[in-house]
Amino acid sequence: MANARYDVIGIGNALVDILVEVEDTTLVEASLPKGGMMLVERSDSDSLYKTLPAGIEKSGGSCGNTMAGLAALGGKGAYIGKVCDDQFGDVFRHDMTAMGVDFPTAAAAGGPGTGKCLVLVTPDAQRTMVTYLGAASDFTPQDISVSAIQAAKVLYLEGYLFDRDAAKAAFIASAEAAHAAGREVSLSLSDGFCVDRHRDAFLDLVRNHIDILFANEHEICSLYQTDDFDTALIAAKKDCKVACLTRSEKGSVILSGEEVHVVQAQAVAKVVDTTGAGDQFAAGFLYGYTQGYDLAQSAKIGGILAAEVISHYGARPETDVKSLVETMLGA
Amino acid sequence: MANARYDVIGIGNALVDILVEVEDTTLVEASLPKGGMMLVERSDSDSLYKTLPAGIEKSGGSCGNTMAGLAALGGKGAYIGKVCDDQFGDVFRHDMTAMGVDFPTAAAAGGPGTGKCLVLVTPDAQRTMVTYLGAASDFTPQDISVSAIQAAKVLYLEGYLFDRDAAKAAFIASAEAAHAAGREVSLSLSDGFCVDRHRDAFLDLVRNHIDILFANEHEICSLYQTDDFDTALIAAKKDCKVACLTRSEKGSVILSGEEVHVVQAQAVAKVVDTTGAGDQFAAGFLYGYTQGYDLAQSAKIGGILAAEVISHYGARPETDVKSLVETMLGA
Repeated sequence: MANARYDVIGIGNALVDILVEVEDTTLVEASLPKGGMMLVERSDSDSLYKTLPAGIEKSGGSCGNTMAGLAALGGKGAYIGKVCDDQFGDVFRHDMTAMGVDFPTAAAAGGPGTGKCLVLVTPDAQRTMVTYLGAASDFTPQDISVSAIQAAKVLYLEGYLFDRDAAKAAFIASAEAAHAAGREVSLSLSDGFCVDRHRDAFLDLVRNHIDILFANEHEICSLYQTDDFDTALIAAKKDCKVACLTRSEKGSVILSGEEVHVVQAQAVAKVVDTTGAGDQFAAGFLYGYTQGYDLAQSAKIGGILAAEVISHYGARPETDVKSLVETMLGA
Repeated sequence: MANARYDVIGIGNALVDILVEVEDTTLVEASLPKGGMMLVERSDSDSLYKTLPAGIEKSGGSCGNTMAGLAALGGKGAYIGKVCDDQFGDVFRHDMTAMGVDFPTAAAAGGPGTGKCLVLVTPDAQRTMVTYLGAASDFTPQDISVSAIQAAKVLYLEGYLFDRDAAKAAFIASAEAAHAAGREVSLSLSDGFCVDRHRDAFLDLVRNHIDILFANEHEICSLYQTDDFDTALIAAKKDCKVACLTRSEKGSVILSGEEVHVVQAQAVAKVVDTTGAGDQFAAGFLYGYTQGYDLAQSAKIGGILAAEVISHYGARPETDVKSLVETMLGA
């Protein structure tokens, strides 16, 4: 993995989050299942937004959060995702580049606007997300940067994009470009319901293009249509070079050929908000993996980042995770 | 003051705040005086933004903060200010209307974009603000809504707009429209340096169009070119029906004809961030004034809101100030 300009390059839905505190009744009135994540059309996003109280805006997106975590650890990342040449697009680009993450994708002129995610935070600290993808839904093979992908040790794909055919084609093209340059390809399944909608295509992707797979229990069981984690685990071991299966407070299981690592979760004094736990596990694991740490150490770094992010509101690290990891690995 | 649809209608610079945590060195490198508030061109705003870390965005603006405070108390407000038909314009409009504040000004199509304020927060919790006015700087007499102004008990003008001739003309036209309907007109001087730049025009405005004047010690001394607060106080008493002079931890002095009220500041356990103290004093005072409280009670409500806002980061109330005021006035 020498001569790589980047440790990781990610492809994801570029979204600006609009965080709003609401009462439970708001979810009931809008028929939104608490804790859910749903995709809606612009008109639905706009009409819901009209009913909400004042909020705050910040750059987000699952893969964007992972790249933020990687950058916070000192890893060198790049990000591919589609925004428009509007103010939210400027905010997204600014925040990525300000963190030291390269962003080679050109903004689309005009069009449907940069995507946004309405994040409804209820008093019990749960987050219900309503996403209008905007420009992100126009992601096609033309938006990938082959030279950037080939300059990264690992390509990281956000499963959420897999809802659209053009984005599926872009994933395949990106994976082939990475492999042609001797790089590795990783995928986060992102969402059990997304897996349900595209099971065959996901299985094909995982079996033929993915080296490193990230999934939680629900997602991996959905992929292999089983209720039994052990059954899913055996199937995943067969399909990927490395499978990273996360299990919330039960830690993670890392499988690679005959290697099996059962890694304990990092202790957390108080779980405040679980958003971003999977994104940050991937960030920590990929940081370790691309720095030459072994699989168990990489999973431990992933667990440290996940524990940090669930200790506060928001899906990106807020403390000095670089020092935290150095201290905890040293200990 | 019967038959008014609104308690207060405000005219201000409509801005979206971009809050960014920076080190002191960032201020030094950009030659920005800590705690200062400066207006810059778009190119300067853009080039500074490029150097900054990731931030969060929220609706702001001095008068916008005052209207947020009024709405939090249960007052009925309206806001006049210029945004563009872009995403920050949507955010600003959404937040005002979500708080129950009417926003009759149409968004400008195209143009320089909705204004933004880069709020640089240093580790000592001080805020240094760099504002690009964008669409707000195009405010002209055509942007005022005479019917809305005449439907409000009190018109509230944000002094920051007074840097531009077209906005000055809009202030005069608005004040005349309000007075023609038997309404009252109030003004916040906003900034001692702005007063310095336009002293004669401010004096003319105060003497001929303003019923209720809000100013802190620095601003009122700047207006009357004196170092002596008592001298400024006597001059203000002569020029306005009501002068509300705020003195930070020394409380406020309210003058009206022969009436003088020296109102103690509300106790604050810990001052976290003084941004918005003046905006919230005006919100509380105008709420009390338009609900028929006497001047001393109105000033006390202003002090309660100012104390609340300096107890936390941010320029708008975060606790239930309506209950707080009811409890404290009852006591």
